[in-house]
Amino acid sequence: MTLIENNNLHLSGNKTGVILVSGGMDSLVTAAIAAKQYKLAFLHINYGQRTQNREMKAFNDIADHYKVSERLTVDVDYLSKIGGSSLTDKSVKVTKADLEFNGIPTSYVPFRNANILAIAVSWSEVLKAEKIFIGAVEEDSSGYPDCREVFYNAFNKIIELGTKPETNIMIETPIIHKKKSEIIKIGAELNAPFELSWSCYQNEEIACGECDSCVLRLKGFNESGIKDPIKYYTYPEFIQ
Amino acid sequence: MTLIENNNLHLSGNKTGVILVSGGMDSLVTAAIAAKQYKLAFLHINYGQRTQNREMKAFNDIADHYKVSERLTVDVDYLSKIGGSSLTDKSVKVTKADLEFNGIPTSYVPFRNANILAIAVSWSEVLKAEKIFIGAVEEDSSGYPDCREVFYNAFNKIIELGTKPETNIMIETPIIHKKKSEIIKIGAELNAPFELSWSCYQNEEIACGECDSCVLRLKGFNESGIKDPIKYYTYPEFIQ
Repeated sequence: MTLIENNNLHLSGNKTGVILVSGGMDSLVTAAIAAKQYKLAFLHINYGQRTQNREMKAFNDIADHYKVSERLTVDVDYLSKIGGSSLTDKSVKVTKADLEFNGIPTSYVPFRNANILAIAVSWSEVLKAEKIFIGAVEEDSSGYPDCREVFYNAFNKIIELGTKPETNIMIETPIIHKKKSEIIKIGAELNAPFELSWSCYQNEEIACGECDSCVLRLKGFNESGIKDPIKYYTYPEFIQ
Repeated sequence: MTLIENNNLHLSGNKTGVILVSGGMDSLVTAAIAAKQYKLAFLHINYGQRTQNREMKAFNDIADHYKVSERLTVDVDYLSKIGGSSLTDKSVKVTKADLEFNGIPTSYVPFRNANILAIAVSWSEVLKAEKIFIGAVEEDSSGYPDCREVFYNAFNKIIELGTKPETNIMIETPIIHKKKSEIIKIGAELNAPFELSWSCYQNEEIACGECDSCVLRLKGFNESGIKDPIKYYTYPEFIQ
């Protein structure tokens, strides 16, 4: 994929794709993939997470990089009111990463992705966008039930049933079956600006290197043989 | 249905049902039906509609009537930011009722019910509620695509797929195939306090009697032979 091919596709297509951009590396690489064929519209969700300001900065930095003019930020602080997750409920402690743990982690926000997708569909229907891109990763994503392909397929059905007959919106999950290391390699090929992304659930200035999200990211970069351009406060043992 | 039966069921059951209570008569009657078997939790959505304050008052009045302590109000003002509906976007005019019109009315908020249901599921998962009751009415509800039974059935599938394995939440739509006049009769049998409900899309003090929602309500009361206890500014021709 060269920049020239990328530009050609831009000129031929120009259908709109709404990209859910948290500011993390999965959504960054998803945006890089979508940019090959779609005019990008970026949607960012603030749901009361600890690192909200830092994620917002990453969102805008990435949007600037891709020259995205359609940007929407939605506050869903009701998710922190509803509680039940360490990401939003201060009474639930952020657990340190345990990659052997097979259950649902404390950072699970009940039905979060359905809330986010519903917002994305409302916006897409107004924009007349045809695709919603989400950087969900099934095998590598801590076992969240609403990150699985079967969930997104079922969601496409409710989009079809719950919107106007002339509306035609499909969710695309281009990295759903990729490993973190593969996502990083795809991003590197597409010149995705990893230095602008933010993954840490805990800190806002220097990434902690200890939370689930940091450890998965560092493990992915380690396996891909590519160096993560962002700084960490501490590193897991597997990085020497 | 007598009050004694109602109380007995209360004592035997005590599983929680989340009721979506807009403050209108459909949600009022739905709450009255759910109260027979479930401990009620009331969810109200402010989505930037013109009559937000009046609906909020109706919600609280109905909650007081049923002695509901679990109440949650969620602001989804992003729906007015996204726009595209006369209910929330001041650049789209509220159309006067035309009951012969078969298209999707201007009051349609893109994918509104999916947004609301996603919130209800998040709250229900935290409350460990087993049911979500919504007073959607398919045949009689102005053709909104996300008010149809087929939509709710598909939504149950995404709840099953998108929540924790131990979570067991189903959407119930007890009045989905009822006509307005039948809903009013059921409500009257259950002593639902219609005088506390609010349906008008346009006004907050005296109902307009002209918008889709007022006309459908008045038509229903007229057909049921029961008098609507609330006051209207004007009445459609079919009421003499």
